[in-house]
Amino acid sequence: MMEDILRQVQDGTLSIEEAKKQLATYEDLGFAKVDHHRKKRQGFPEVIYGEGKSVEQITSILEAIKSKDNDILITRISQEKADKILKLHPELTYEKIAKILYWKANAAGTTDKAGYIAVLCAGTSDLPVAEEAAITAEVMGSNVRRFYDVGVAGIHRLLDQAKDIQGATVSVVVAGMEGALPSVVGGLVSHPVIAVPTSVGYGANFQGLSALLTMLNSCASGISVVNIDNGFGGAYSAVLIDRLARQK
Amino acid sequence: MMEDILRQVQDGTLSIEEAKKQLATYEDLGFAKVDHHRKKRQGFPEVIYGEGKSVEQITSILEAIKSKDNDILITRISQEKADKILKLHPELTYEKIAKILYWKANAAGTTDKAGYIAVLCAGTSDLPVAEEAAITAEVMGSNVRRFYDVGVAGIHRLLDQAKDIQGATVSVVVAGMEGALPSVVGGLVSHPVIAVPTSVGYGANFQGLSALLTMLNSCASGISVVNIDNGFGGAYSAVLIDRLARQK
Amino acid sequence: MMEDILRQVQDGTLSIEEAKKQLATYEDLGFAKVDHHRKKRQGFPEVIYGEGKSVEQITSILEAIKSKDNDILITRISQEKADKILKLHPELTYEKIAKILYWKANAAGTTDKAGYIAVLCAGTSDLPVAEEAAITAEVMGSNVRRFYDVGVAGIHRLLDQAKDIQGATVSVVVAGMEGALPSVVGGLVSHPVIAVPTSVGYGANFQGLSALLTMLNSCASGISVVNIDNGFGGAYSAVLIDRLARQK
Amino acid sequence: MMEDILRQVQDGTLSIEEAKKQLATYEDLGFAKVDHHRKKRQGFPEVIYGEGKSVEQITSILEAIKSKDNDILITRISQEKADKILKLHPELTYEKIAKILYWKANAAGTTDKAGYIAVLCAGTSDLPVAEEAAITAEVMGSNVRRFYDVGVAGIHRLLDQAKDIQGATVSVVVAGMEGALPSVVGGLVSHPVIAVPTSVGYGANFQGLSALLTMLNSCASGISVVNIDNGFGGAYSAVLIDRLARQK
Amino acid sequence: MMEDILRQVQDGTLSIEEAKKQLATYEDLGFAKVDHHRKKRQGFPEVIYGEGKSVEQITSILEAIKSKDNDILITRISQEKADKILKLHPELTYEKIAKILYWKANAAGTTDKAGYIAVLCAGTSDLPVAEEAAITAEVMGSNVRRFYDVGVAGIHRLLDQAKDIQGATVSVVVAGMEGALPSVVGGLVSHPVIAVPTSVGYGANFQGLSALLTMLNSCASGISVVNIDNGFGGAYSAVLIDRLARQK
Amino acid sequence: MMEDILRQVQDGTLSIEEAKKQLATYEDLGFAKVDHHRKKRQGFPEVIYGEGKSVEQITSILEAIKSKDNDILITRISQEKADKILKLHPELTYEKIAKILYWKANAAGTTDKAGYIAVLCAGTSDLPVAEEAAITAEVMGSNVRRFYDVGVAGIHRLLDQAKDIQGATVSVVVAGMEGALPSVVGGLVSHPVIAVPTSVGYGANFQGLSALLTMLNSCASGISVVNIDNGFGGAYSAVLIDRLARQK
Amino acid sequence: MMEDILRQVQDGTLSIEEAKKQLATYEDLGFAKVDHHRKKRQGFPEVIYGEGKSVEQITSILEAIKSKDNDILITRISQEKADKILKLHPELTYEKIAKILYWKANAAGTTDKAGYIAVLCAGTSDLPVAEEAAITAEVMGSNVRRFYDVGVAGIHRLLDQAKDIQGATVSVVVAGMEGALPSVVGGLVSHPVIAVPTSVGYGANFQGLSALLTMLNSCASGISVVNIDNGFGGAYSAVLIDRLARQK
Amino acid sequence: MMEDILRQVQDGTLSIEEAKKQLATYEDLGFAKVDHHRKKRQGFPEVIYGEGKSVEQITSILEAIKSKDNDILITRISQEKADKILKLHPELTYEKIAKILYWKANAAGTTDKAGYIAVLCAGTSDLPVAEEAAITAEVMGSNVRRFYDVGVAGIHRLLDQAKDIQGATVSVVVAGMEGALPSVVGGLVSHPVIAVPTSVGYGANFQGLSALLTMLNSCASGISVVNIDNGFGGAYSAVLIDRLARQK
Repeated sequence: MMEDILRQVQDGTLSIEEAKKQLATYEDLGFAKVDHHRKKRQGFPEVIYGEGKSVEQITSILEAIKSKDNDILITRISQEKADKILKLHPELTYEKIAKILYWKANAAGTTDKAGYIAVLCAGTSDLPVAEEAAITAEVMGSNVRRFYDVGVAGIHRLLDQAKDIQGATVSVVVAGMEGALPSVVGGLVSHPVIAVPTSVGYGANFQGLSALLTMLNSCASGISVVNIDNGFGGAYSAVLIDRLARQK
Repeated sequence: MMEDILRQVQDGTLSIEEAKKQLATYEDLGFAKVDHHRKKRQGFPEVIYGEGKSVEQITSILEAIKSKDNDILITRISQEKADKILKLHPELTYEKIAKILYWKANAAGTTDKAGYIAVLCAGTSDLPVAEEAAITAEVMGSNVRRFYDVGVAGIHRLLDQAKDIQGATVSVVVAGMEGALPSVVGGLVSHPVIAVPTSVGYGANFQGLSALLTMLNSCASGISVVNIDNGFGGAYSAVLIDRLARQK
Repeated sequence: MMEDILRQVQDGTLSIEEAKKQLATYEDLGFAKVDHHRKKRQGFPEVIYGEGKSVEQITSILEAIKSKDNDILITRISQEKADKILKLHPELTYEKIAKILYWKANAAGTTDKAGYIAVLCAGTSDLPVAEEAAITAEVMGSNVRRFYDVGVAGIHRLLDQAKDIQGATVSVVVAGMEGALPSVVGGLVSHPVIAVPTSVGYGANFQGLSALLTMLNSCASGISVVNIDNGFGGAYSAVLIDRLARQK
Repeated sequence: MMEDILRQVQDGTLSIEEAKKQLATYEDLGFAKVDHHRKKRQGFPEVIYGEGKSVEQITSILEAIKSKDNDILITRISQEKADKILKLHPELTYEKIAKILYWKANAAGTTDKAGYIAVLCAGTSDLPVAEEAAITAEVMGSNVRRFYDVGVAGIHRLLDQAKDIQGATVSVVVAGMEGALPSVVGGLVSHPVIAVPTSVGYGANFQGLSALLTMLNSCASGISVVNIDNGFGGAYSAVLIDRLARQK
Repeated sequence: MMEDILRQVQDGTLSIEEAKKQLATYEDLGFAKVDHHRKKRQGFPEVIYGEGKSVEQITSILEAIKSKDNDILITRISQEKADKILKLHPELTYEKIAKILYWKANAAGTTDKAGYIAVLCAGTSDLPVAEEAAITAEVMGSNVRRFYDVGVAGIHRLLDQAKDIQGATVSVVVAGMEGALPSVVGGLVSHPVIAVPTSVGYGANFQGLSALLTMLNSCASGISVVNIDNGFGGAYSAVLIDRLARQK
Repeated sequence: MMEDILRQVQDGTLSIEEAKKQLATYEDLGFAKVDHHRKKRQGFPEVIYGEGKSVEQITSILEAIKSKDNDILITRISQEKADKILKLHPELTYEKIAKILYWKANAAGTTDKAGYIAVLCAGTSDLPVAEEAAITAEVMGSNVRRFYDVGVAGIHRLLDQAKDIQGATVSVVVAGMEGALPSVVGGLVSHPVIAVPTSVGYGANFQGLSALLTMLNSCASGISVVNIDNGFGGAYSAVLIDRLARQK
Repeated sequence: MMEDILRQVQDGTLSIEEAKKQLATYEDLGFAKVDHHRKKRQGFPEVIYGEGKSVEQITSILEAIKSKDNDILITRISQEKADKILKLHPELTYEKIAKILYWKANAAGTTDKAGYIAVLCAGTSDLPVAEEAAITAEVMGSNVRRFYDVGVAGIHRLLDQAKDIQGATVSVVVAGMEGALPSVVGGLVSHPVIAVPTSVGYGANFQGLSALLTMLNSCASGISVVNIDNGFGGAYSAVLIDRLARQK
Repeated sequence: MMEDILRQVQDGTLSIEEAKKQLATYEDLGFAKVDHHRKKRQGFPEVIYGEGKSVEQITSILEAIKSKDNDILITRISQEKADKILKLHPELTYEKIAKILYWKANAAGTTDKAGYIAVLCAGTSDLPVAEEAAITAEVMGSNVRRFYDVGVAGIHRLLDQAKDIQGATVSVVVAGMEGALPSVVGGLVSHPVIAVPTSVGYGANFQGLSALLTMLNSCASGISVVNIDNGFGGAYSAVLIDRLARQK
């Protein structure tokens, strides 16, 4: 890229001002720098992490993104904050369990939707993280199939659905407590598994550390791990993989 | 017990000297106090933990125990130390993988041996701990069936033997790395499960911490846990349970 | 089991639909999969962990379980939630200190109740966990004797009751702070000891980590450990053991 | 799969013996159960983790695998052990830095090799882990391009090669010390990134914990993480992804 | 200093009372000892850490300091407490984001203000810590230039401003989550970098531990680290350095 | 003691009932066992730890203790709870900063009060713990001198009072943050030092862990440590030592 | 002290040179500063920590100390190093288990030796630490009685000797594994208890952390703790206390 | 910089090839990329971290650096490796305690050497780290004054030299065990303090963690911290600061 720009500058086909602008690809809101080239560079526009941001901050960032007709995805946003933003932007949709507020520039969609991502969770307490993953993946344009409450202590609930899980392009496996589910899934499928530990549990769980360590030490291959409770991050990696599979 | 002794002292059927002896139930070797009443009190004579003890120390303790015709069980003893002791006491038997040296006062045995303990391990690297458990249980008088290399990443290897595992009175489940095996076993059986984490693994395993936390946080019920690599302790608890079951 | 089902399918005595149903043993409520075969497979119906579940979720799960005339045991449920459920299901009983809501299908009971489980706790602050253990064991059909406030700093309080503790089939020993009680109990009895660390303490206690490590490192044999504050889990293991002893 | 087998048994096209064999898919060597169906189920035959296994154990496992004309991949195997095995099996190849011993059933290969995996490492001390990843990926059939010594403290070394890195289907990013490289790479590429922390460093590095936490907390999206020093695991996930991309 | 005082006592030019006073350099408020010589000894008067102190305690300390015409700097003080103090001392100024209340004895200033400190932060959530650093440095008499939201996942936002950052005498680099920013900055500049980890993040961030370890393990040289969220401490070190540079 | 009781039982000078009573030295309140012999055995009656106990529980324990004319010492008790108890027992005294409620059976006292305990604290935020120590020591009958706000960052404040500190029989040194004060004090005095870490601090302080480790690793001799924030425990040890010194 | 020196300087009774010397109380060996006033200031001359020091360094420090006729105490010194030093200084004595090399200036002694320190240890593996404590106390002039192998799992071994332990002025209680012994001892005695955790154990013991936490969280009062394996430190504190008691 | 290069390319005064070379500023040795512009960019050429590098690797990197007449600084290099390199490059100098091998391009030097860095260490065991700092600073062109064995347990040894320490431009304070020295120094001086924790200690020291936490939590201002045992890093920061001071 650097060479291209240099060559155009040399050729006179690109002014210095324009060359600088191509590198300075963000809009400076003072408290934040909105990255407008991100969709071009990474395939999806900037995502807003809602926790710890005020309604005003979120609103001005989302308006900057929306002004370029980019999709909006706001994670970890409370019902209360979402309600305030929805008054100004009723075109957005709020998913309560997932705590996600989003808007799709092109609701109709054109993507070939042949494959799907499997989102699994071990217990009902893991639902918020699993839903954060599932909704994120859907907003980013992938198909999702949910397999919930399939923890390893009742292994038949999982085995019963093995065929459908095996059919996915990639699995996002969400589990708290001892976090053993990804190891079992990893042994059943031949596609990549993204493991998401949750902070569900108590005592020696240490806010998800137990599940995190379990997943990092998995004896099954093909498993990689994201941060505790990071359903969004698990989905993001899965979508990148799903896209590779669906490009065929 | 206190009341019995007091009553006998009052009755004059027990001298003060004898009353004191009944409480002072150990032999003082200077560096150690050998507990001769332990078999009566706890059902099995004192066990010698070999690590960090010299051949001389081990020998004098084992001779004190043997002089009362009590069984001998020495754990965590290296081949080298065992060889030296075997020269003096060729009647003992050394189990190399388990690192156990033992002698049974009554080799013939009289115990009703109907039930059995299931000893499972997840991978071949967990063998030394599993064998420490299996040999301990056998020396203490229980039947043992071994189910090795049945880790959760290839779940069919475990399910295939479910029936035989379910038939045990109690399971000792040994696993390193992510330590997920006890959770799956706990969901398959209706008897108590003793989980033994091992230090097998690397990196974020932190010398067995990962497997330990997994087991403590198990979503399956009926699982209790012993220290990392403590095959002996797992077997000891299992034997106490097995005896309760076999007393019928 | 697999062979039995296969044989019946081959014989034509079992339809494929029925064969599948025998493996698919749960009811799918959407957000949860209720395991109806659990009583058959594991000897006690599914237990509901109340924390983090809504009144609605708990109610629909308990109704699914109750519809099969199975016992109900809901742990970690606040007075507030319990009151709401009791309005709909006044036949349930709430134990305030233990935070348990339960219902027994067959209040009369038929079990032979010869033996008993000893539930000990070190200090009065450990009572909620001890009661969670005691009530769980009672609801599951075992006799329980309570030995409370017998911590090691006043060892005579414990020794005084040694005989009654020794008479149990199994002990559940609950302790916070330094968690030394199971080690002392383990040296006094010849039956299995389930140790339950509690988060009672402050500073270098680290929410129960201190008591947990103490119990895992116990120099006494026959002790196994469950998660911090897991009175339910301790009782569950104890009941499985008590049943083995009482089957005689 | 279960339904298929059941139907064939019902049809009489499959004997019970054969049905059982299809589920019992491993060869029992006593100390290990070799999984012959793994290639079919997961796309690559069982991999042998060499650490802690004896030359004899490794040899008998590899011969069991090779007897089915499956590829051989042995990781974490020392030069010394490898030399002994090479005497018996001179057809194998040993990669010294990666500590990998391997054999490909079909050296010629038929796979379409259009795409490639980028393997990056931050410093020269991370080379062994990076090479474990690179060789694993190559043995498993992927193309690999290496970008070594491109740590963030001299960011121009990385930016200079951005175009070639962006061209990969997936990146495996290996880094020790502060482990910041995956975050920067994650911001430059639009494909999935597998981050591999290494134990390179000292002091507050805590054997790789620092790099591991950095990678789990990355502010860049599309990054998932494997265990410390687990170059093999990072490559395995990457190969599964690369295959999805190359299936087109 | 000791020798000077001794010599003056010997000379009779200093009374014993006066000699003692020169060592007893603080005012005893009972609950606190206000250090009046600190400005002389360390170049800046005592700073008041507001957290955990009552309005009354803060007021009496600040009045003791102000009575000597020393500057006032109160950190970690809530809006609520500040409002109460401002009623009594309207001449003070409150900085809301930084949570700092201050007063400068000599608002005009006489310091040569040629150089400047660069204060950088990675994300908008790090603003409170960055502002604590920036305001502290300004109150202590340094020039500050702010470079905010320049995290490593969008490296071009940082590189774009490299020249201005390089022009500073010292950089204070504030970052949470994975904390990689100081490593990249350390590779771009030739002046000292003070790294300030923040507790921004979740899960395996462990309240800033992740960022702290990252910074301590930085592969770049010239970086030293202060406590998590310690914007004040980072600025204090930076001001000492900036003064050395500006003394020329 | 055991021999004495046995001999009296044998002599007939002690009935079995009485012998049992001499060992069963506590009053059973159901939820607690109040230890009436503690003053005889350990020199001070049972102390009530107020945290987590209800007003009712505290009241019934204190009344049981008071019924034997024993001193009352209740620690960690909130103003709110104390107010309720004071309505029933206005003869008690509440110390607000120390959160202690107490009553002395013999206010006049008869103890020889020649020596004194030095209680030091590093900063004003450590006051609550220091006062818990100081009041505890006073209620238990020792003289106390307070040396507050003498942290090591202004070493002259400490050195200035070295002589008075050196005159104590024992020092209780309370410090949070880096906890360095005991090391410096330990180098200045020739009497025992009890170090009390506090949870004062933030970030890498980890709720007092930093100060605790500092004190355990002190390079000065004669220092021993109690739990984080355990002012009571520090004072208790100090009083035992002070008594030994004052017995002369 | 400062005032005294100032007054003498003013009076002319002390020269400045002499005044400085009274503060500069150590001998500078280049690599070390030997503190000759320590015996005056703290009651015992400087102790040499042998680990990590060369034979040459130790020899020159001990000769500097001995030149003032001060006692010599060298801890953590291997047999090998001790042998080399003993060739030069055959008047020293080496204690093998304690790894202590010492010399007493006045072997006859004049101290009133009425009281004694009780040194207890839980198991035979704790002997080296217990002996380090016992020998240190003896060299420093206290009487010592040893109570070894009295761990809590066989509580009768401890209770049997309660009377003799209660007779001590102070107890040093050494324990590894779960470290429960000090809690039980603390409940039996009315004198101060110094608890010394040892690194004896494995797995979740974490090199003595388990025992350390147990002791810090002890529910018994009057217990303070020193560093893991720090038998010397435990004894030093005990000797200071014993001296206070024996001064009567 | 970017603008300058762009402008020259536009002007035709810089070819594209040359423009690319100005950004590609390192020499690629295959296993490493030697950064030749580092001296220009950061004021000192690349430093070689010797640990984990072979003699061959070190030699080829140092020859690449030396070929540009840049200074050589190799840290953490054993005597054995150094000896081999010295045979090839006898012009280098090896510092044994510091484990540093170096060569100065311009031994005469031209730098104004008015100021100096104070390097302090607490105990003799901290010497290797202190010397790594001192030698690094000297090789990089600063004056150094050493203040060794001035730990806080004998505070007079430190105070005695306060004046000379106060005269430095910056202090590097090295301490293990409890690591309290920087706090005391920070309270005595008005210049920046770089604190270097060492791994010297045992038990609850946890390989330097204790000293590290102490320094991060210091109650004194103006202190920043580098990694455990990182004498080089401490010196590097100090030299950058010293240069700023000496530029005047």
